[in-house]
Amino acid sequence: MEGKPVRASICRMNEIVMPNDTNPNGTLMGGRLMYLMDICGAIASQRHSNSRVTTVSVDFVEFRSPIHLGEVIVLEGFVNRAFTTSMEVEINVWAENPLSGERRKSNKAFYTFVAIDDQGRPRRVPPILPETEEEWQRYHDAARRRELRLLMAGRLQLQEAINLREDILAMLKAKNEEEA
Amino acid sequence: MEGKPVRASICRMNEIVMPNDTNPNGTLMGGRLMYLMDICGAIASQRHSNSRVTTVSVDFVEFRSPIHLGEVIVLEGFVNRAFTTSMEVEINVWAENPLSGERRKSNKAFYTFVAIDDQGRPRRVPPILPETEEEWQRYHDAARRRELRLLMAGRLQLQEAINLREDILAMLKAKNEEEA
Amino acid sequence: MEGKPVRASICRMNEIVMPNDTNPNGTLMGGRLMYLMDICGAIASQRHSNSRVTTVSVDFVEFRSPIHLGEVIVLEGFVNRAFTTSMEVEINVWAENPLSGERRKSNKAFYTFVAIDDQGRPRRVPPILPETEEEWQRYHDAARRRELRLLMAGRLQLQEAINLREDILAMLKAKNEEEA
Amino acid sequence: MEGKPVRASICRMNEIVMPNDTNPNGTLMGGRLMYLMDICGAIASQRHSNSRVTTVSVDFVEFRSPIHLGEVIVLEGFVNRAFTTSMEVEINVWAENPLSGERRKSNKAFYTFVAIDDQGRPRRVPPILPETEEEWQRYHDAARRRELRLLMAGRLQLQEAINLREDILAMLKAKNEEEA
Amino acid sequence: MEGKPVRASICRMNEIVMPNDTNPNGTLMGGRLMYLMDICGAIASQRHSNSRVTTVSVDFVEFRSPIHLGEVIVLEGFVNRAFTTSMEVEINVWAENPLSGERRKSNKAFYTFVAIDDQGRPRRVPPILPETEEEWQRYHDAARRRELRLLMAGRLQLQEAINLREDILAMLKAKNEEEA
Amino acid sequence: MEGKPVRASICRMNEIVMPNDTNPNGTLMGGRLMYLMDICGAIASQRHSNSRVTTVSVDFVEFRSPIHLGEVIVLEGFVNRAFTTSMEVEINVWAENPLSGERRKSNKAFYTFVAIDDQGRPRRVPPILPETEEEWQRYHDAARRRELRLLMAGRLQLQEAINLREDILAMLKAKNEEEA
Repeated sequence: MEGKPVRASICRMNEIVMPNDTNPNGTLMGGRLMYLMDICGAIASQRHSNSRVTTVSVDFVEFRSPIHLGEVIVLEGFVNRAFTTSMEVEINVWAENPLSGERRKSNKAFYTFVAIDDQGRPRRVPPILPETEEEWQRYHDAARRRELRLLMAGRLQLQEAINLREDILAMLKAKNEEEA
Repeated sequence: MEGKPVRASICRMNEIVMPNDTNPNGTLMGGRLMYLMDICGAIASQRHSNSRVTTVSVDFVEFRSPIHLGEVIVLEGFVNRAFTTSMEVEINVWAENPLSGERRKSNKAFYTFVAIDDQGRPRRVPPILPETEEEWQRYHDAARRRELRLLMAGRLQLQEAINLREDILAMLKAKNEEEA
Repeated sequence: MEGKPVRASICRMNEIVMPNDTNPNGTLMGGRLMYLMDICGAIASQRHSNSRVTTVSVDFVEFRSPIHLGEVIVLEGFVNRAFTTSMEVEINVWAENPLSGERRKSNKAFYTFVAIDDQGRPRRVPPILPETEEEWQRYHDAARRRELRLLMAGRLQLQEAINLREDILAMLKAKNEEEA
Repeated sequence: MEGKPVRASICRMNEIVMPNDTNPNGTLMGGRLMYLMDICGAIASQRHSNSRVTTVSVDFVEFRSPIHLGEVIVLEGFVNRAFTTSMEVEINVWAENPLSGERRKSNKAFYTFVAIDDQGRPRRVPPILPETEEEWQRYHDAARRRELRLLMAGRLQLQEAINLREDILAMLKAKNEEEA
Repeated sequence: MEGKPVRASICRMNEIVMPNDTNPNGTLMGGRLMYLMDICGAIASQRHSNSRVTTVSVDFVEFRSPIHLGEVIVLEGFVNRAFTTSMEVEINVWAENPLSGERRKSNKAFYTFVAIDDQGRPRRVPPILPETEEEWQRYHDAARRRELRLLMAGRLQLQEAINLREDILAMLKAKNEEEA
Repeated sequence: MEGKPVRASICRMNEIVMPNDTNPNGTLMGGRLMYLMDICGAIASQRHSNSRVTTVSVDFVEFRSPIHLGEVIVLEGFVNRAFTTSMEVEINVWAENPLSGERRKSNKAFYTFVAIDDQGRPRRVPPILPETEEEWQRYHDAARRRELRLLMAGRLQLQEAINLREDILAMLKAKNEEEA
């Protein structure tokens, strides 16, 4: 199966925060943003896999700053790496004030999608071929995040988490040296 | 007021056709697409004007080919030209089949927005500074389309429609020569 | 195929402007109104054709006056004329203030629908039989508007637009006499 | 306060049954229809009272026949009678098959609305002036239904329900004669 | 068919009043609440019958106190009694102020659902086995309310309404004694 | 500030999967479920804090099994622990087949909310007083998860993560012993 570049999967969305998207404080509900990120990630992973997809998991997400009624939500999603039948999609979110034009970073999230056939069974997807240094970095980090997900889902033992174990040992070593 | 380039106003959207967007034939309703184009145009004209905006008119729109349930609607809007307080936004729409990845042109529409202040009164907007030949072409065509709109709205006499009159005379002349 | 009167196709709708229909200025979004007009036109053309229909085009529409949150949108649509498989529907829109009861004209739009069968192929529709002078006027004007649509869609040459050409020549003649 | 005729309050609506309005059997959900009848009744009672209104009660409603996906829901509401600050609105509903054009009666409902001011306090409304025999009949029946409502809400004793008591006594008398 | 206890059918819902659920006074629309009660009742009657269900009727409902934007709507539905193929569901509604935590009773409604098969034909449902005194009371009252429904729908003669007739006679007797 | 038990915050929701909640495979979209979990968590944390709340973060979530159109989504949320101004809410999700009555576990998620005042500034919330062994276990685990969140958000150094460090060291020790 031939690989595809990251840029073939990019999905950009712009959405206006409408009254029904807000809580009584007049700011975007976190759940509404997670819904939009899911749509964005589904389109990006469909573009990579030319397949139907379904959401498998969402990594830890933080909501840094409130987005207000009438502001524009800007989303950009792309596939960082493919693993046999699944894909890690990175989704970056900005909030844009329509009166000042100022755009501020709001969120970053990692959604995992799996490609499925008509019966809902997983299908193979093409590998990602990173082209820039940044894309290679994300490609490597994706492997670590995947181990973390499998650990958290209880489907991987710590000793099998090769990349993560090294990270943890390095962290502990750095800490010990700091303390020494 | 300093001018701004076309690219500062570009708004890209990707939307999945959901069940409630479709008619009983399973294809996207025209009215739903006009709603999405309105959102796309509003964001583009807000970006150009750093102002609230309201829709003033929509030019003739054709719906060339049906877009199906589950397909992705891709919209791209940008300001072609600004006229004191109003802006012509061109919105191009494609339909994308998620399984084949094939993308086909669906529509082109021209929406006109006016910038408004808190009381809903029109506000001046910066001029557009075209940068490419294509943008200059659209800039010039926008003047013709504006005359056509004013004619259709009964706010311009034919003899005042300088650009259009020349077009019509040229067309009639060409026709007469052809017939001769 | 037996003809049907205009009144057999009339569709009246009343809708309240809800929070999610409005922009941050508290007025009805143009795109939301175009969505409602599409529903209204679809019902009117279904009534005429006893068939599924799909939107083919929308003529130039102007949004004359803002409609506010809580006001009632009154829509009335009916078929002006049928052309083999397509129908021109005229949709008139009023805004009604619930506290004063005052009703003001907001919009007029011309939507074109085509009747389709189960496979989405065009089907013949009955002709319109105008009954009043007003309906005959709209019936004749519909032919002119159709030529204009075909011209704008690039599917008709100016010399084939018989009705329009006469209008343009008359306008030019009137203008020349005025100038003389 | 001057009276107003029934016809000044008529509200007609046409709505297409969309996918999200249906249960898994593909028929309109009862609750969705009650929502539409509420909108229709609110507009009719606003038209009579030139006031904001709020729903006070809904009488017994039956859902006689299923309405299917893609069918048109036709609603007509009007004020039968006004009682100081409240109004009884009768709402009739039909279902229309778009392919056959056949229209069948679906429901009749009686909603009661009260006119309110900015602080949500009840306001007086004009009386209804019936014009036809049918409207007079509905006007008289509305008094009986109102007593029934007050009885059911525990705000009226049976001996105070003058109209109803006569009905019940008549019914019992008729029954006794039948049995004798 | 084996009976089932009331508790097997309980359905609890919590919903936040969102902007689009409110009228211009900022309070929950009655029709929106009837929609939510319909969902709640459908789930309760599905749980009892392990079957698809459809709404047959809704008894008289009063809207006692306004519920405000941002408040929580608490619904609890359960089956009071089953009648061959239909079920009476009682739905109680409270409004909860999120800032004070105070919860107040808002509504009680009785919805009737019928169990249906794939072709939409009525199916038998298990009987209800009341377990508490309160449940037995509701079980008995459900028979009276059913007679009232059938009377109102014109499908039962007064002399056939055994339970109701006794109630009416008792009421009239009590009244006569009071007057004497 | 007086503490409150976990049970005071419980929020139960039941929702039917509607057509617009599904992807083209007819199963619930992950983003739609995250939206519902956000509502459920917001109500639970409002109940604990008697305050407006806003979503701060969502921990890793897995979507184990597809939920189908027409199935019932059952959600239960409650506050595990409060930290000055924030609260960890645990949300458990089940899917219920309406025809078999079978209920299967679908998801577990941890959402963090912060209590806010009218200006959107964080407010203190009461502590949680666990009552059962299970609640004490969740209370202790919540501290570990909080450290993990702060680590992931880059607001805590590993050496400050007292609870987590012990876990990691225990895990590594166990692993080494296993390997030895």
